[in-house]
Amino acid sequence: MGDPVTIALDAMGGDHGPSVVIPAAAIALVRHPPMRFILVGDEAKIVAELAAYPQLAERSEVVHTDVAIAMDAKPSQALRRGRWKSSMWLAIQAVRDGKADAVVSAGNTGALMAMSKFCLKTVKGIDRPAIAAIWPTVAAECIVLDVGANVGADSRQIVEFALMGAAMARALFGMERPSVGLLNIGVEEVKGVEQIKEAAQVLREAPLPIRYHGFVEGDDIGHDVVDVVVTDGFTGNIALKTAEGTAKQIGEYLRAAMGRSLLARLGAILAQGAFRALKEKMDPRQLNGGIFLGLNGIAVKSHGGTDATGFASAVDLAYEMASSGVVKRLGSDVAQFHTKLELEGAA
Amino acid sequence: MGDPVTIALDAMGGDHGPSVVIPAAAIALVRHPPMRFILVGDEAKIVAELAAYPQLAERSEVVHTDVAIAMDAKPSQALRRGRWKSSMWLAIQAVRDGKADAVVSAGNTGALMAMSKFCLKTVKGIDRPAIAAIWPTVAAECIVLDVGANVGADSRQIVEFALMGAAMARALFGMERPSVGLLNIGVEEVKGVEQIKEAAQVLREAPLPIRYHGFVEGDDIGHDVVDVVVTDGFTGNIALKTAEGTAKQIGEYLRAAMGRSLLARLGAILAQGAFRALKEKMDPRQLNGGIFLGLNGIAVKSHGGTDATGFASAVDLAYEMASSGVVKRLGSDVAQFHTKLELEGAA
Repeated sequence: MGDPVTIALDAMGGDHGPSVVIPAAAIALVRHPPMRFILVGDEAKIVAELAAYPQLAERSEVVHTDVAIAMDAKPSQALRRGRWKSSMWLAIQAVRDGKADAVVSAGNTGALMAMSKFCLKTVKGIDRPAIAAIWPTVAAECIVLDVGANVGADSRQIVEFALMGAAMARALFGMERPSVGLLNIGVEEVKGVEQIKEAAQVLREAPLPIRYHGFVEGDDIGHDVVDVVVTDGFTGNIALKTAEGTAKQIGEYLRAAMGRSLLARLGAILAQGAFRALKEKMDPRQLNGGIFLGLNGIAVKSHGGTDATGFASAVDLAYEMASSGVVKRLGSDVAQFHTKLELEGAA
Repeated sequence: MGDPVTIALDAMGGDHGPSVVIPAAAIALVRHPPMRFILVGDEAKIVAELAAYPQLAERSEVVHTDVAIAMDAKPSQALRRGRWKSSMWLAIQAVRDGKADAVVSAGNTGALMAMSKFCLKTVKGIDRPAIAAIWPTVAAECIVLDVGANVGADSRQIVEFALMGAAMARALFGMERPSVGLLNIGVEEVKGVEQIKEAAQVLREAPLPIRYHGFVEGDDIGHDVVDVVVTDGFTGNIALKTAEGTAKQIGEYLRAAMGRSLLARLGAILAQGAFRALKEKMDPRQLNGGIFLGLNGIAVKSHGGTDATGFASAVDLAYEMASSGVVKRLGSDVAQFHTKLELEGAA
């Protein structure tokens, strides 16, 4: 991409609106100076926040609208009332119209998915978009999807998730043939629900640009067993939140243990650099952002309650996704897969 | 229970057989001196191990058999070949015949469930047994089920899991009305799959000896939101293993952080008491054991690869379950529930 990457931000999304989104954009801009922004929302509020960040102001275009999607709006309601005019919609539309390379919103997940599907449309050959998360592992990171776009998935959708996750790993991590595993309750071929067993058979046999690993279990996700972990949106969401909850819980144990005795407190002071590094590694804000895959454009969902540090991570992610050319990669991988399936008469 | 609690042990189960099971029984006996054991398996091997533990030998009866169930046997195969004669079967049968109050095995989970169902039979009014786990929380513990007995569950089974988990909490934690939550991908009533929404409606309206909390998410499990978390066996197994994997992963981060600099290493030495306490708290062996609920008897599954410390935890759990009268509690709760449903004409 020769031109600077432009990111459209829904400035009114999330629990804090422009007071988090604008400082976050300023943080991300320092890390990626060629970036430009389209800031969508209440102009007066956005301009007031921008006053503190002249460099950001210089590289931003403000698009005004009075309409914002409520955090608790139902997706269908949000689509009906917020289409064509809400800050969320207009930020997505900037991607559709080629004015922006990606959109980031901390708004309502269901509304963002409904509007993104309606506005950007699903990639040809993909049944349903998925939300991918980047999951920290012992040695690096892996991609997990779907973490909540759908409440279930049939075997065809699971295969598509595998393709989409692999395309993302190829684009984002620069891998030629990422390894892909299906999340299951055992690694033996006979284990699990029917749709997963069927998807496994397709992945084993189809000539795809992936290394199909087989089944993986919950404790494999963070241990670098595969580059891409594929599951349905119900299970993936629960796995992701369970891991986040466990990390928080252990942080609380650790704090309690280190405060218990004088020696422990002294030790904690000496090791404070190490604890700081650990805290940073475990900070959920470092990997904030669900990536919508399978759409004709990049949309990133930030946690609604995050601060500027967290939202800036979501902007970083959008920047990396936009620079990686993942949408093209995904489209051509999917097209190739369907061509092959049709040739085999299996589609 | 006036008489001492007797536990039947499948001495041949698990990766290590009697060399782990016998020392584990000795550890558990120190903690619960009135306990007695029935040790089932290769008599020569068992007696050889018992030589080191005269107190245990005095309180144990050895039942000999040559047949052991392979760790990788298919449940149907295990049932066909191992029925009436394997160490796993004979240990379960001791419970059925009233000679033991509970059985513990580190053998193949599927085989143990198939044999336990066949031998002990399912409690009247329960469609399918479940496996419950005790999950450490920030402040205490909660019960999570099903963690893998079934690959799915319909709404009726989910309601039964709720009843069974609550009966276990009432018996084991001494609670009058435990709070129960259904694991879901959001806390709003409209979220989730159909069978969970249907189960929620039954739990909201039925006059049960529980406080129905509503939906909980993955990050609520460890944070003392409810006493009992109910889910299907697929999701529950993945949540449990994801949490175990995350705890292990953070342990690795912590070790790496503490070894990074001289100051950190010195701090770690000073705080070693605190680290030891933390390690113990995070040690998966402390809460080793899946409890089979819904059968006419108590069966506890230990991890196959655990050591004597881990297997001893499973024996402790069987002891507590046997002492708590959970099987009677569960039977009467279920019978009462079905009577009420029938009176309402809903069954």
